[in-house]
Order: sequence, then C-alpha cells, then structure tokens
Amino acid sequence: MIDGHGDDIYRYNDIRMNFSSNIPSFADLSALKSHLYSRLAAIASYPQASGEALEAKIAHSIGRKASEVMVTSGATEAIYLIAQALARQCAEEERTYTVFHPTFSEYDSACQMFGMRPTEQGTSCWLCNPNNPTGTIRDEAFIRQLAQRHRWLVVDQSYEDYAAAQLPDVGSLPNVICLHSMTKKYCIPGLRLGYLTAPAPVVDMVRRERRPWAVNALAIEAGLWLAKEQPRMVDMPAYLREAQRLRSLLDTIPGIHVGQTQTNFMLCTIDGHTAAELKEHLALRHGILIRDASNFPGLTPHHFRVAAQRPEENDTLVKVITDYVS
Amino acid sequence: MIDGHGDDIYRYNDIRMNFSSNIPSFADLSALKSHLYSRLAAIASYPQASGEALEAKIAHSIGRKASEVMVTSGATEAIYLIAQALARQCAEEERTYTVFHPTFSEYDSACQMFGMRPTEQGTSCWLCNPNNPTGTIRDEAFIRQLAQRHRWLVVDQSYEDYAAAQLPDVGSLPNVICLHSMTKKYCIPGLRLGYLTAPAPVVDMVRRERRPWAVNALAIEAGLWLAKEQPRMVDMPAYLREAQRLRSLLDTIPGIHVGQTQTNFMLCTIDGHTAAELKEHLALRHGILIRDASNFPGLTPHHFRVAAQRPEENDTLVKVITDYVS
Repeated sequence: MIDGHGDDIYRYNDIRMNFSSNIPSFADLSALKSHLYSRLAAIASYPQASGEALEAKIAHSIGRKASEVMVTSGATEAIYLIAQALARQCAEEERTYTVFHPTFSEYDSACQMFGMRPTEQGTSCWLCNPNNPTGTIRDEAFIRQLAQRHRWLVVDQSYEDYAAAQLPDVGSLPNVICLHSMTKKYCIPGLRLGYLTAPAPVVDMVRRERRPWAVNALAIEAGLWLAKEQPRMVDMPAYLREAQRLRSLLDTIPGIHVGQTQTNFMLCTIDGHTAAELKEHLALRHGILIRDASNFPGLTPHHFRVAAQRPEENDTLVKVITDYVS
Repeated sequence: MIDGHGDDIYRYNDIRMNFSSNIPSFADLSALKSHLYSRLAAIASYPQASGEALEAKIAHSIGRKASEVMVTSGATEAIYLIAQALARQCAEEERTYTVFHPTFSEYDSACQMFGMRPTEQGTSCWLCNPNNPTGTIRDEAFIRQLAQRHRWLVVDQSYEDYAAAQLPDVGSLPNVICLHSMTKKYCIPGLRLGYLTAPAPVVDMVRRERRPWAVNALAIEAGLWLAKEQPRMVDMPAYLREAQRLRSLLDTIPGIHVGQTQTNFMLCTIDGHTAAELKEHLALRHGILIRDASNFPGLTPHHFRVAAQRPEENDTLVKVITDYVS
C-alpha cells in the first residue's frame, strides 16, 4: 500500500506536533547525526551488496549467528521479500495467508502482490506484536499455537522496544521469522533499516529473493554505529508511563474512547465526527498530525491512532480534541 | 547477483586507487555533502512513501510528465521491479527475455528471479547503452529494430552521462522503458538513487510492484537538490579524453588488449595470467582495485575492466600493469 499510511506530514505546511507515526519525535538523534556527518564520504562508494558486515555486527549484538540475521531496507522490505520467498515455496493452492485485523496493512499488500489469498488457516500467518494499530501484545501460548497451526509464522516485532510487558521469545522456533526495526528502535524512519531473524535455512530462503545494494551506505553506516553504541534515544519507562497518562486523559474526553495499550501508541474512536474530519481540523487549525485509522480493514470511519509525544504536546492534543468535541 | 560485482573495496584493507567501479572517484561531492549535512534531520521522519515530490522535480528537469517518471532505490531496484511487472503481464510460455552478452548481470538475475527464461526472441529485451562492460554504444536503427521485435524493450542508460557520442533518443517509443542512474550521473553509489522513464501506462504497470518508503529520505533529499542544482561533478569532455588516453596506453602494453570504448570505462584482456591473478596482485601489492570481469557470461578468465581515474592514477595503473606482465 503506497498511500494511506501515517506520518504524511509532507501533505501539510505547518505541522508542529506529529502524533501520527508510532515514534517519539523528541528522540535525541544528535550523536547519530554527528556520526553520519563524519561518514558522509560513504555516499561515494557502493555499499556492501548484501550488508554482511552489518549483519555480523547485529548478530553479535543480539547473540545470534550471522547466518540467522538478514539486514533489509526497513522492516517493510523484509515483509515483501518474505512474501516473495513463501509464495515461491508454495504450489498454487497453498498460496494462502492469515492475518488478524486490524493490523499493519503491508502483510496483506505483500502477500497479495505475490499471489497469496487471505484465509483463516493460511500456509503462513503474519502477526504484529505489539500490534499496530491496537498496541496490544499476544502471549507466548497464543504464538506457539500459531506456529503449530501454520507452516510459517512471521512475527513483526517492530515495536518490541516500546513494549510495556515482556515479549514472548519465540525466535528459536524452526518456522518463525521475526522482524525487527531499527527505524522504530532508534527513531530513524528516514534511514530505512531493519532486519529479520530466523533459523539459518529460513534466512537463506529469504536471502535468495534479494537484490544487491538494497541498503543505502548511510543506513549501513548508521546501523554499524547503532549496533555498537546502542544509544538510548528516549527514557523508555518514563515515555511508556506518559503514554498511559495520555490514554487516560483522552479516554475521559466525552465521545472519545481509547483502547487499552501496552505500548506507546493507542487506538481511539470519536463519536459524532469522522477521524478524517478530526484529522483535517487538527492539522489545519492547530498544526497537529494524527493518524486517520479508518483505512485499516476492520476499523470504522471513526477510528484514529495517536502515539504519545512530549507531556506538554500530549496536554495540547487533549485540549484541542476536548475543544473540538464540545 | 549479490557477489561478484565491482567496487568490492571493503574486501581489502588498503585500496588507494579504485578503477573497479565505473565512476570517477575524484568527483567533487563537497557541495552535495554540505547540503546533506544541512538536511540530516530528514532521518527522523518517514520519506514520502513513493517519492512523488522527487518524481515531479526530475520530470520537470527532463521535460517529461511526472506520470512518466518513477524514482527507485538505484537503477538496480528498477530492474527488479520491471522484471516483476513484465512476468506478471505474461502467460507462462511468454516468460522469456533477451540480453546481449557480455552485459550487466542484473538483467539475467532479475528476469530469472521472476521465472523468465533467456531466448533469442524474448518477450522482453534488455539493453545496456552504453554497454557495461564493453563501453560501446548501440545506434538508433538497432534499438528501433529491437523495439519492433520485442513486446517490451528496456534500455539501461545508466552511463548516459559518460557517453562520448550522442545517445539515440528512443524514450518516446510506446514499449520502451529507459533506466537512468543518479548514482552514476552524480557519482553517489552509496545513496542508491535512480529512476525510470516510460509512457505513463508502462510506468503505472511498474508502479504497481513497488513497496512504500523504498527510497531513503537522505537519497530523496540529495535527489531534490541535485535535480534543482544539476551540479557538474566532473569535467566530462576532459575525463572522456583521459579515458581514451588510458585506453591507448594500456593497449600498448605487451599482452594487454583493450577494446574500443565510447565511455569512461573499458574492457581489457591479459595474456598469460588470469584477471583474478592480476587483480589480487594489484590490490595486495599496490592498493589498486580493478574489476575482474571473468564472471560476465561470454567473457573469459582473462578479462578485466577498468574505469579511467585521475591522469596520475591512470599513469600508475599503466606502470604497475607493465611491470606485472614483464
């Protein structure tokens, strides 16, 4: 899906506060930027065709073998390469997949691009954990059951660093592919950097689908530095507490209902208006961007999603939505 | 093909001169680097999902409509997306393609990844013009004939800015897709930036294969600036004259034979040694990197490719190869 994602900040002139992408906009990227500045010469040479130095570094940092890690141009590239690999493994009638709506739209888009049909007992199952847009976490028993029921299970852990509870560790199951997002972990969506982990034969299967130089040299430079330094971009416990505070405040606004969340973002509904109307009002009148979530299958025109930002920004969001509905 | 390309500079410790990638390593990137430094904040936001602002800017700069331009993460991504799109348009028995060896390996790799078989009269034909690794240019009559004989013709003009002769303008033919490389034009292989041009319905067909955020935000920032400023990275007439001077000098070395070239790189053979032996000798003894071209289908273990660099570097190359063969 090309259109309809969050963080469409370029569509508006004066966005001052961005609640639309699931990333804290106040992350301190100054050290990373300094490093990238010192490495700008990397633009003049080809990156490694497959990013193997970065794969080795990431593997070391997470205690896995390099053969169990594949670097991608964001988790989104991983989703498409996995769909391409799984479709190739399947006879026509086996080209089926399962997702649990509402969830990230790219699993549907990628699977359908490679000829797979959605069913309840698909050959592959795709799970986002914590889930976008609901912010909920599935437990280990549920995930192990999925791994038993489906030939392959893809667990997108893009939001793992924002999980308010321990995530089940299912990465060693032989048919599970886990997606990881350095974009999300380090608040760098512009750089496009992610990786997948799986048993080596599964990683090999996905590697056969990739093209050379898919990851930009500056993304690789950033990744090498981040995997080594592992900087803390935000104070996570404080940020997750702030997300719960925002949830409580929004949920007390008449006509606004907010689901439980175990991460930094939350799914809301608004009575009497559409999310699209609310979004336009907030963007044009207040320079505030939210995610109209009505295009997630299974949701309604009244659904929107916000990610917590700074306390004072969150207070402003609560105030302007309160004014809007009253 | 992941392994076996040129510019594998990361495999060696002390490369001082790089003749292995078809790009002048002395290009002046300082203004672009300054601009990127000023735009490093772009890493903190998602790029446009499809890079439409950059497509509009490029279209304007080349006098085409935005609907006729598609930005990609390097010309290599374009090759794979086109192969994916063409395979989808074809019944099983039509999934055939034609290439003229020796040429860039990725046409074979991409077509075969999507189930196409090489034949002499393929549904699609893929031409590199000027051709890598030979440096030769095909004329308009030849290309028009190809466009008539094949349902689709892909003309990879990645080296168009290094062409010593006028390239035929075949971009308006209804079944021709032209590839363009900002990587090559602006000497920025690390950034991964290219685009294709074709009639709007053909561009639409390829656009349906792409995933969101494929082009990194810094590549987009660079592209917007480059399309606007159109800086001259090298003195092209002088550089192409220097390439001819290098060709003449290399060709006079006993046992070295150099093909005619109409661009900045050239295909050579060495008698009595393999290209792999020459490459290892030059890299380990002299810190000089060349492209062992023996893995191009149709070539031999004796083929290597060099791109001209600075005059004094070219003189050094000639001297060390002369010493090696004598």
